[in-house]
Amino acid sequence: MIDLRPIAAILGVLLAVLGTTMMIPALVDLIAGQRDVVIYAAAAVITAFVGLSLWLAGRSGEVERLDLRQAFVLTTASWVVLSGFAAIPFMWTETDLSFTDAYFEAMSGLTTTGATVIAGLDNRPPGILMWRAFLHWYGGIGIIVMAIALLPMMQIGGMQLFRAESSDKQEKMLPRAAQMAKGILGTYLVLTFACAVAYAFLGMSVFDAITHAMSTISTGGFSTHDASIGYFKSPAIEYAAIFFMLAGSLPFVLYVRVLAGDFSRLLANAEVRLFFSLVVLFSLVSMVEQVRGGIAQGETALRQALFNVVSIMSTTGFVAADFTHWGPPTDALYFILLFLGACTGSTAGGMKTFRIAILGSALAQHLKRVIYPNGVFPVLYGGKPIGDDVVASVLSFAFLYLASFMAIGIVLNSLGFDMVTAFSASITAVANVGPGLGTVVGPAQNFASLPEQVVWLLSFGMLMGRLELFTVLVLFLPSFWRR
Amino acid sequence: MIDLRPIAAILGVLLAVLGTTMMIPALVDLIAGQRDVVIYAAAAVITAFVGLSLWLAGRSGEVERLDLRQAFVLTTASWVVLSGFAAIPFMWTETDLSFTDAYFEAMSGLTTTGATVIAGLDNRPPGILMWRAFLHWYGGIGIIVMAIALLPMMQIGGMQLFRAESSDKQEKMLPRAAQMAKGILGTYLVLTFACAVAYAFLGMSVFDAITHAMSTISTGGFSTHDASIGYFKSPAIEYAAIFFMLAGSLPFVLYVRVLAGDFSRLLANAEVRLFFSLVVLFSLVSMVEQVRGGIAQGETALRQALFNVVSIMSTTGFVAADFTHWGPPTDALYFILLFLGACTGSTAGGMKTFRIAILGSALAQHLKRVIYPNGVFPVLYGGKPIGDDVVASVLSFAFLYLASFMAIGIVLNSLGFDMVTAFSASITAVANVGPGLGTVVGPAQNFASLPEQVVWLLSFGMLMGRLELFTVLVLFLPSFWRR
Repeated sequence: MIDLRPIAAILGVLLAVLGTTMMIPALVDLIAGQRDVVIYAAAAVITAFVGLSLWLAGRSGEVERLDLRQAFVLTTASWVVLSGFAAIPFMWTETDLSFTDAYFEAMSGLTTTGATVIAGLDNRPPGILMWRAFLHWYGGIGIIVMAIALLPMMQIGGMQLFRAESSDKQEKMLPRAAQMAKGILGTYLVLTFACAVAYAFLGMSVFDAITHAMSTISTGGFSTHDASIGYFKSPAIEYAAIFFMLAGSLPFVLYVRVLAGDFSRLLANAEVRLFFSLVVLFSLVSMVEQVRGGIAQGETALRQALFNVVSIMSTTGFVAADFTHWGPPTDALYFILLFLGACTGSTAGGMKTFRIAILGSALAQHLKRVIYPNGVFPVLYGGKPIGDDVVASVLSFAFLYLASFMAIGIVLNSLGFDMVTAFSASITAVANVGPGLGTVVGPAQNFASLPEQVVWLLSFGMLMGRLELFTVLVLFLPSFWRR
Repeated sequence: MIDLRPIAAILGVLLAVLGTTMMIPALVDLIAGQRDVVIYAAAAVITAFVGLSLWLAGRSGEVERLDLRQAFVLTTASWVVLSGFAAIPFMWTETDLSFTDAYFEAMSGLTTTGATVIAGLDNRPPGILMWRAFLHWYGGIGIIVMAIALLPMMQIGGMQLFRAESSDKQEKMLPRAAQMAKGILGTYLVLTFACAVAYAFLGMSVFDAITHAMSTISTGGFSTHDASIGYFKSPAIEYAAIFFMLAGSLPFVLYVRVLAGDFSRLLANAEVRLFFSLVVLFSLVSMVEQVRGGIAQGETALRQALFNVVSIMSTTGFVAADFTHWGPPTDALYFILLFLGACTGSTAGGMKTFRIAILGSALAQHLKRVIYPNGVFPVLYGGKPIGDDVVASVLSFAFLYLASFMAIGIVLNSLGFDMVTAFSASITAVANVGPGLGTVVGPAQNFASLPEQVVWLLSFGMLMGRLELFTVLVLFLPSFWRR
């Protein structure tokens, strides 16, 4: 049997924090003179009360000695349960969503996906817009801490590569996480603040600047306008968004080390270097495509190329110009970018750059072994050979990633959606990007028109993708629950 | 340097055989009173002459001691060169194709793909129809012999699993191949003959029976009618086609062993059992979809389900009823089936059933390792643990397979084709199935309207898919050609 007490205790704390933060939209609506203030307060009390109860029920457990299976349950339970409570404001305030839609919106927020079922954002009360942005921000810091503290222990999809040598003992998980989390939380706050200041300075209202800063650093993608970043019609704001989306795509551990004085580490990092190379490569491709297709020239083409490539690779999903009318080459590029994602230990989703690097090296190694069957060709990452178990992990992950994407796409397709809609909705959910392609889930539309079972399926897809697939799937194995 | 003499000698023999067999369509047209007889004779003389010259030039080489790199060059060169000569009749007779289209048709024949650029088949002279069917048949036996004799040595995509214990020495490659080839050629002839008799008995003309028997056993898919098997409007013929397509999907080595008295081996084979399970499973799914969608009932639904599932999984590509109007669920099913393929050492293409089995086991093992990081969970195939190198081979193959499919699809997409057309054309070529989806490459259309560079790209895709990707790709590595 799994001792659920430590899980309940930690979940309780997370819920209490979530409940407390519901006072932020309450305050915002109070200032704006909106009527939903009391509702936020009620939701806050309920959430905080459940959180405190859980903490009281579980605090006798040994929170600091979480074992591996408890870590798995905690991770998935955090996103599943928090989304349930985070959904309350979407149901009770004037957005008046069904539980299905509200849960989707909350999950989309906490997984930093940014797909939305709410139309007419421009005329919504500021409280609910603030709440959406805050969910991104809370989910973003949550995923960084999880990636650093829990995933390497879980040996998921090659993440064991990032396990610090000194921390092989599972008992040390939480103390180490708490220590590292402090530095990372500081960085996260500073980056968000810097982003908000930049946005405000470049012409956004203070409210838009704060909410978009939270969506940007968390690589989430919720906006306060239906037209997303395109609303501002400001090249300067677009460049600022590009810069801060990139900031959210880098490993946050590196920032902490850079702040400790070791500046060279940032650019020496194999994943960061590959990530930037891919951004440059695909931006050039997109720029050439725009110029060739007569869509844009010069600086406009460059900016649109950078913005779209960074928005998708960072899995933010902001939209500046609706690229779906740019013709087939852009669709194809979009699908490639959706599979890549950005760096591990960032707020970005997707397959992650280090896995792309290992996949490339594994294929090259396999080709060489085909020619020289008796030669030894280790798979390299960052110039160093890596273990066969890591390679197998990464290959399994990549295959399961493609299989999940196809499975959800096939289910959507069989429910009657055309192939472009079905497969782009699937990958945009699993990769935590946000907008899909086509007339139903494209960047100029939203997910509100989808039937209920599709909305649940996509919520599940976002959860799976955000928690690196295996974390969620192990819970479905009977042997996980047996001793 | 690679000693090209043995390659030239073997290629010469294969070409001489191809040239000689051009007399078959010549004979057929002679009987039918068509005018192209002399052209076939000329093509035959040219092909046989080049073949003999190559053989004379190369026969001083040590043909029986082919090394690994020579085997790679020979394999790709066989399909590339033979397609060039097999294309001559398509250019010079009344079909009057360009070299691009003729090469595509020949490659489609020799790779047993069955995609065609020729419209109006019903009114074509029998000679050219016979030639198309024969190319399937020649390519089919060629791929079986290659899969048995050369691929296991090449350690491609896990094929080393099928290496007989006694044959680790590369020097023994060809003698063993020759010995096994005799039994397999016998089986292949008997099955083709039985299929032709069945078709004729069930109402086909003798000519249609022979040509369709050759297309069926080779799991190729060329027909003598634009409506393919649907032309005959005969449920009995459809059932016969189902039976013989299945026969072509099984490992031919097993037949030889079964004929030697060891009947139990056929059904005890892990790959065969999984293959049949998948056929039953997906046929049931397709049947339910048809009944639910009001497309067909009872026996008709069962037959259409079996026919389509077997036609695609066996990578034959025969069409009885145009399933593209059955709605989205069928499109989705079609895409899943396209990825599966049938058994190794058969005439079928695709990813192959044994790889599906190993992928499934590898994923399950990875999930278990995630839960028990210190446990040992070997990947199983047929109930037995298999080596890490085989697992890595299979995973690399699966990834490269998906990557090739996506790369070709993306290129087609960027050339202006919609996504369904682009990706279905890509996978139908790489998996050697034949018909794609949509208005350009769908089962009721053909590939004649495609621009030249697309036709070449698809020819390359068929070649890659047929020769298990790595066989072709290694030739592009500079280190392959260096000592």
